[in-house]
Amino acid sequence: MIVWCGSTEAYQEPSGVHASVAAFEQGLKDNDANIAPSQIYAYAALQCDVPFANGAPNLTTDLDCIVELSKQRNVPIAGKDFKTGQTLMKTILAPGLKSRMLGLRGWYSTNILGNRDGEVLDAPENFKTKEMSKLGVLGGILQPEVYPDLYGNIDHVVRINYYPPRGDNKEGWDAIDIFGWLGYEMQIKVDFLCRDSILAAPIVLDLALFMDLAHRAGESGVQEWLSFYFKAPQAAGARDAEQDIFIQQTKLKNTLREWMGEKPVTHSEAG
Amino acid sequence: MIVWCGSTEAYQEPSGVHASVAAFEQGLKDNDANIAPSQIYAYAALQCDVPFANGAPNLTTDLDCIVELSKQRNVPIAGKDFKTGQTLMKTILAPGLKSRMLGLRGWYSTNILGNRDGEVLDAPENFKTKEMSKLGVLGGILQPEVYPDLYGNIDHVVRINYYPPRGDNKEGWDAIDIFGWLGYEMQIKVDFLCRDSILAAPIVLDLALFMDLAHRAGESGVQEWLSFYFKAPQAAGARDAEQDIFIQQTKLKNTLREWMGEKPVTHSEAG
Amino acid sequence: MIVWCGSTEAYQEPSGVHASVAAFEQGLKDNDANIAPSQIYAYAALQCDVPFANGAPNLTTDLDCIVELSKQRNVPIAGKDFKTGQTLMKTILAPGLKSRMLGLRGWYSTNILGNRDGEVLDAPENFKTKEMSKLGVLGGILQPEVYPDLYGNIDHVVRINYYPPRGDNKEGWDAIDIFGWLGYEMQIKVDFLCRDSILAAPIVLDLALFMDLAHRAGESGVQEWLSFYFKAPQAAGARDAEQDIFIQQTKLKNTLREWMGEKPVTHSEAG
Amino acid sequence: MIVWCGSTEAYQEPSGVHASVAAFEQGLKDNDANIAPSQIYAYAALQCDVPFANGAPNLTTDLDCIVELSKQRNVPIAGKDFKTGQTLMKTILAPGLKSRMLGLRGWYSTNILGNRDGEVLDAPENFKTKEMSKLGVLGGILQPEVYPDLYGNIDHVVRINYYPPRGDNKEGWDAIDIFGWLGYEMQIKVDFLCRDSILAAPIVLDLALFMDLAHRAGESGVQEWLSFYFKAPQAAGARDAEQDIFIQQTKLKNTLREWMGEKPVTHSEAG
Repeated sequence: MIVWCGSTEAYQEPSGVHASVAAFEQGLKDNDANIAPSQIYAYAALQCDVPFANGAPNLTTDLDCIVELSKQRNVPIAGKDFKTGQTLMKTILAPGLKSRMLGLRGWYSTNILGNRDGEVLDAPENFKTKEMSKLGVLGGILQPEVYPDLYGNIDHVVRINYYPPRGDNKEGWDAIDIFGWLGYEMQIKVDFLCRDSILAAPIVLDLALFMDLAHRAGESGVQEWLSFYFKAPQAAGARDAEQDIFIQQTKLKNTLREWMGEKPVTHSEAG
Repeated sequence: MIVWCGSTEAYQEPSGVHASVAAFEQGLKDNDANIAPSQIYAYAALQCDVPFANGAPNLTTDLDCIVELSKQRNVPIAGKDFKTGQTLMKTILAPGLKSRMLGLRGWYSTNILGNRDGEVLDAPENFKTKEMSKLGVLGGILQPEVYPDLYGNIDHVVRINYYPPRGDNKEGWDAIDIFGWLGYEMQIKVDFLCRDSILAAPIVLDLALFMDLAHRAGESGVQEWLSFYFKAPQAAGARDAEQDIFIQQTKLKNTLREWMGEKPVTHSEAG
Repeated sequence: MIVWCGSTEAYQEPSGVHASVAAFEQGLKDNDANIAPSQIYAYAALQCDVPFANGAPNLTTDLDCIVELSKQRNVPIAGKDFKTGQTLMKTILAPGLKSRMLGLRGWYSTNILGNRDGEVLDAPENFKTKEMSKLGVLGGILQPEVYPDLYGNIDHVVRINYYPPRGDNKEGWDAIDIFGWLGYEMQIKVDFLCRDSILAAPIVLDLALFMDLAHRAGESGVQEWLSFYFKAPQAAGARDAEQDIFIQQTKLKNTLREWMGEKPVTHSEAG
Repeated sequence: MIVWCGSTEAYQEPSGVHASVAAFEQGLKDNDANIAPSQIYAYAALQCDVPFANGAPNLTTDLDCIVELSKQRNVPIAGKDFKTGQTLMKTILAPGLKSRMLGLRGWYSTNILGNRDGEVLDAPENFKTKEMSKLGVLGGILQPEVYPDLYGNIDHVVRINYYPPRGDNKEGWDAIDIFGWLGYEMQIKVDFLCRDSILAAPIVLDLALFMDLAHRAGESGVQEWLSFYFKAPQAAGARDAEQDIFIQQTKLKNTLREWMGEKPVTHSEAG
């Protein structure tokens, strides 16, 4: 089992070398500059029949070549970017706001980090990779296409700053601008004094266990039911993966119930 | 349809006069001091076949006599205490913390209110009614009996202060002390600059519509599927009502789906 | 040198027994219930020619009998209530707001403490002593009698709550409602995660040194120039003592300069 | 009287064209790219004997040529960058921390602005001008060269982000990391929901009145006694201008007292 916990790599979009296993293998021979280190690890893991989960925001497993290989080899993959601090909080709060149909005008998130992770993310090319991963969550949860009046005009800003006094800890501050009945404005501020490794460690353990379970159960390709653990969950099919942490959790639990032959929980009066 | 929005009444525990419809009616004749104004309204509503939902933290519909009468008359009741500001936030965050098995050591909540509501709640006998309603939510969500290491030792403190500069608005500040992997401590602070009436108004409207629907559908007694709207939801049976807002929402939606003859949503891979 | 650091005593106003040294001594013989423990310590200290500074919010040295005795014995006294956490911050911020003539509509301060200090202050009779000491600072700094439009209508609320998870630390949260040009409203929130003993320890040391210096310099009675260290500084004369921490600091420094025979600092262009 | 309130210009260091009035005038003829618009206004004002105060963070009056001209023409100048929101708070809090010799490990400041000012400052070349102006204040107040253990290792980070939902208002959030006795760490968080124009307007008025007074009083060159109003106060002599708002205020008041022939206030026991 490999659960990738490396530093964020520079921003990259998929290119020709990622289009198929054959192209990727040719790229390896050609020392293609578009192949990032984490991709080589993912490739090697699958070739050894080792499931691979990606805890960083780089593409890594979100590539046609890796998905193709995981199906060929019948090995599960999952990703990407552990959902630990500020984004964890965001995917907890956003479903709550939506449950009450509270409108959202803006969400400003700033992070201060004091360790090597903060230093790496202070470089714009690395930050862009992280930013992409972090910005996606609101749209998936709030469905602006279904509720344009409430969620069609959101300014979502995410910043990360290297601030050595925070040391191995992390602090996330969010300013959330919502509106209710008759358009009245309200504000929520969240200050999260957290610890990245402490929040990430149990995710690593859970993923190692569940990826192993999936492998033994004969699953291959993207394990979308593990979206619960990721900031930018990789979809198994054409539809985007779920971002709402509570739906992700229900999906995780009911998928396990099904594998065990139990009935899913529905919380209906009859159920 | 009556949706009760009166000020909080003084704290009271159920007494003999509330034990049955007959005792309550005798109490009305005797001008019994244990009968609070909201209880008379609830009684009168049911006698007129009008569904009654209680948005205040007083007992009102949480009394044997009122439940008995609602079944006799075949009229739905629901309560209690609209879930709008700080408690809304609490039942959004607590399920999120629990989803990740983050331990909770304490939750301090203070509220400042500037209008008549704040003035009424500054009186200790009224505040106690509110405090009881507000304190219950964490236990129901976190299940300390199932997870004693994580949730067996929580200091939960709730305070409300009358602070005229806040005017018709409200501000809730929460200090939440959590712990993760290996017992490492982390903190979350939430400042919610909100507006009580703006958050409550759509709940009043929803309840009026859903109580009417329930009445037409022939339902009577406590409408537990409407727990989504209440801080201290009244249970229909022996088990406590659900406090987790996301389970409450799923229950609300799947109950409606069932009444329509549709399959409940399960979010499982197969579903 | 005695620097009193005991827990807050129950609220008390001066009574007959405190009116003179003679009355106090009679009260000691009669075991008068109006004599609090800290007062006996202060009396004993002065009788032994030991200067006494009061770090708690009880009256102790703010009594005619103790002031009279300190002059008789030619021993300095000072008090009261160490200025450490939230009130320290308040006497830093309030002069800043006033320097810019920003109006103040309200100041809500809540404190959470987890140790024995918090437990003692949870008792209403002890809290009242502390509340009196804490509420006084704004009036002295802002001069509502001089600026009634800006500072004549302030809601100042101070609360302390016992919250065990905070342990030996302390957290103060302030919501400050100000207004500027044309009456436009603005808000300041301050969250102070502090440590009471760490903030108090250097004050104890400074006071021990300065009280000794004053004693050697032949000073007696109230040492108003040490107001810098106290939440409710005791005045030497008829005028209230200064509350603005920056004026207090200038007073402390210029008093020392004078004793050394140096010119005071004025910060004027010529100075 | 001119009080310059234009948007922040791109970052610039003084160059040859700013070295003397003669060089500047040649630069005007040559249409020198190093001459920014605000500099032309300042030059023109002085040539017309109109005092000029600079409310923006650009150099403008901080140039040898403009200082030379203001002395030649006997006209006062002052600058730079109105001290209104977050920096106002910083120069209130930092003297307070220093008064108690509390150490400072870091100060992270983030700002969100929603109007044209925020948009202009989102451009890195403009932000750098602002950043330089904002970063300077702590060193001047805390004197790291005198107190290296307390203030010799400070991470001071200032960020500004364009966030349209904030509209004409502004929000500044500060995370301040201090340490006390025995090196124990404490934290202060300040959230300032403010309004830039409302805080700036009275400064414009005060400066117009005081610059006029200075002109009538025959003053010329840099009016350092008006430092109270500026984030990066321009010094009249070789020594840096004072940054501590309370010393600035004392300086302002005592300078006026001296001009009136009154004794300065010293706050000493004798004074």
